[in-house]
Amino acid sequence: MGRREGLALRTAEGAGLCGEKAPQRWWEEEMSLPIFLMSDLGEGSIYVAAMRAVALSLSPQSPVYDITHSIPRHDIAYAALVLEDVAPYLPPCVLVVVVDPGVGGERAVIAAKSGDVLAVAPDNGVLSPLLPGATVFRVENESLMLRPVSPTFHGRDIMAPVAARLAAGLNIQEVGPRHQPTMLVLPEPDVSDNFVKGRVVHVDTFGNLVTNIKRVHLESAGIGTEASVCVCGRQIGRHVRTYSDARKGTLVWLWGSFGRLEVAVVEGSAAERLKAARGSAVEVRGT
Amino acid sequence: MGRREGLALRTAEGAGLCGEKAPQRWWEEEMSLPIFLMSDLGEGSIYVAAMRAVALSLSPQSPVYDITHSIPRHDIAYAALVLEDVAPYLPPCVLVVVVDPGVGGERAVIAAKSGDVLAVAPDNGVLSPLLPGATVFRVENESLMLRPVSPTFHGRDIMAPVAARLAAGLNIQEVGPRHQPTMLVLPEPDVSDNFVKGRVVHVDTFGNLVTNIKRVHLESAGIGTEASVCVCGRQIGRHVRTYSDARKGTLVWLWGSFGRLEVAVVEGSAAERLKAARGSAVEVRGT
Amino acid sequence: MGRREGLALRTAEGAGLCGEKAPQRWWEEEMSLPIFLMSDLGEGSIYVAAMRAVALSLSPQSPVYDITHSIPRHDIAYAALVLEDVAPYLPPCVLVVVVDPGVGGERAVIAAKSGDVLAVAPDNGVLSPLLPGATVFRVENESLMLRPVSPTFHGRDIMAPVAARLAAGLNIQEVGPRHQPTMLVLPEPDVSDNFVKGRVVHVDTFGNLVTNIKRVHLESAGIGTEASVCVCGRQIGRHVRTYSDARKGTLVWLWGSFGRLEVAVVEGSAAERLKAARGSAVEVRGT
Repeated sequence: MGRREGLALRTAEGAGLCGEKAPQRWWEEEMSLPIFLMSDLGEGSIYVAAMRAVALSLSPQSPVYDITHSIPRHDIAYAALVLEDVAPYLPPCVLVVVVDPGVGGERAVIAAKSGDVLAVAPDNGVLSPLLPGATVFRVENESLMLRPVSPTFHGRDIMAPVAARLAAGLNIQEVGPRHQPTMLVLPEPDVSDNFVKGRVVHVDTFGNLVTNIKRVHLESAGIGTEASVCVCGRQIGRHVRTYSDARKGTLVWLWGSFGRLEVAVVEGSAAERLKAARGSAVEVRGT
Repeated sequence: MGRREGLALRTAEGAGLCGEKAPQRWWEEEMSLPIFLMSDLGEGSIYVAAMRAVALSLSPQSPVYDITHSIPRHDIAYAALVLEDVAPYLPPCVLVVVVDPGVGGERAVIAAKSGDVLAVAPDNGVLSPLLPGATVFRVENESLMLRPVSPTFHGRDIMAPVAARLAAGLNIQEVGPRHQPTMLVLPEPDVSDNFVKGRVVHVDTFGNLVTNIKRVHLESAGIGTEASVCVCGRQIGRHVRTYSDARKGTLVWLWGSFGRLEVAVVEGSAAERLKAARGSAVEVRGT
Repeated sequence: MGRREGLALRTAEGAGLCGEKAPQRWWEEEMSLPIFLMSDLGEGSIYVAAMRAVALSLSPQSPVYDITHSIPRHDIAYAALVLEDVAPYLPPCVLVVVVDPGVGGERAVIAAKSGDVLAVAPDNGVLSPLLPGATVFRVENESLMLRPVSPTFHGRDIMAPVAARLAAGLNIQEVGPRHQPTMLVLPEPDVSDNFVKGRVVHVDTFGNLVTNIKRVHLESAGIGTEASVCVCGRQIGRHVRTYSDARKGTLVWLWGSFGRLEVAVVEGSAAERLKAARGSAVEVRGT
């Protein structure tokens, strides 16, 4: 959450420096919080439309926004990874994450308070990046839900309505008792002397290979500014600061905007060039 | 519209039970209504962007949301089906539906008041699920439109501006004279003794087969809790309450979240497994 | 920008005619401006989600909307074309355009004031349609940015925060010094006596071929209402006012809703029928 505090500080400073008055903030004005939706239901999904409609019905003053609905189906680990990257930038809000293969079964629905973010999701680990330090409750108060609750769509009948009520000011303790949530351990890279082995965790729209290797891993391995990266048997010697530092078509590695080691082809697709995909091994050696 | 009233009631009760004050509501505050857009123009369409921009230009206080823009091209019946499912969850709002193969021709543009929802659309049946009990007007007041009106995009030049003015408080009677709208009869299942024959009306992102068969049809046929479902020559004996009630790969049928009989493969795709598609026949027999 | 003024006028008139009070306007109320995002990052992109989150963190009262995120990767000319069509419909707002192949390199980030629209984008020509008559500044005030600035994602760390501060009331002069922006010359059709040669600039969702030929070009060539259009060696003699003026399957040309000559197959795809694509030559002769 460090980044978000950074944002808040920056607002104050920036405004001060420029002689502007600080923008009004809804949390000072007792306004409703915005609601952010994230799911594996697909862009343009009518399931998402129903959640949006329910949220607005119950918290008309809350703007409702989307993070993404393109999480691969039932891919809890992927959704957690997206949250890890995006959450530090969120404003105070209520977040709803619907990646819910166990819907209607025994898994609980939880509501968590993590800094300025309230999050509602199935208790399947999808909220893991937000859970350290968070206060977590099990959603059991049926008076907050739509009735009857469909056993196949808790996103609409439990999570969206609970999120809306939280956004409109409901105290989170009203949702139910304290709860020990399921934590998902996201696979960390192997770090040894002068060697780090991680994997591709995301291929972006541009075909860039985003990995689970961060600067801290290279530091732990004692790897300095000189390093060689290997993906799918292909050595990538060229380290750049940004894509445009090399010519079109060059295979490079760099530190991506979320602090992850990234392999790219300038104005091309590293995924295609290297025939790499999510899960491909990525090795880094000091040189 | 029963469901929406349910939502409103629920808000009041829920808030009461928890000792929270009820959230402010814009319709009590004379605020602008939110606007919901739905079309066959595609996600990310610049045509939709133009409609959104026009709506916000004319009703700056109205939040503008999307239902979906992934309606198959010119598929009025499909759009009506989506409306049937989603409309009960909408808050008080202005809804714009642009599925308009006859744009610029003789079909009228209509504005309908159906409960708390005001809807603007071509008079081609797309609003059918909202029309029973609705008051309908033909949009003829040219002072409400953008000028000149493009003969190929009434969504931007007539529907979005009229919707925005309604959202900002215009009395619906100002749009034009009363109108007898076109009604679309959505195909209902055949119901006979111990037998119901319907069809797949939607294949969702997960490959689940959503049908036009509802509980009421099985009740009319005298089919009780024991039933066998047949799709594309394949018998589906297993009835579950929710997906996670059976193992991965199991072919099941269940009641989906919008009350429709649904055929699914647990964590798989029923559409692929059964080579079924929209329009495929679905038969239910009591056992 | 003529169209936007038209919109404003229309609001006033329309409201007057109907005896409605004019809707509240945020620019009279010193409210925050809405923010519109446009990029080549893809629908459902988490990069866009991060920009949205940053914008809302710094200007909580600004609604954030999307124009499109489906610009083809790094396609500055295409994005400029979309802006040319959509900008006249925008309300007073802050526009952020992230099509940024040169991110982290020497190209500047600019903020431009063009009528009621404030726009923030890389200085690579993408804002060209808004630049004539605009006042342009180079974004250099680091106190307005997120820190540290990622060299690969200025959309999130420079453009979104600067846009948010402008939306919240920051004077545009605070972003940095005046700047002479890069202008992109969008290819114009060749016009000669009784002949215009242009090209397809966009194929829409429906397979309609949208060209860079406008009415003014035909007028310059002395071509009247009788004209013959030729695409990919195929003569299109039939001119219609709107799609539904001809039978299903007919190949027609018409004036599209953004004033561009368009070639269409009624309820079909002209792109498929003619094997035409973006860039295909389009010739018009008077008959």
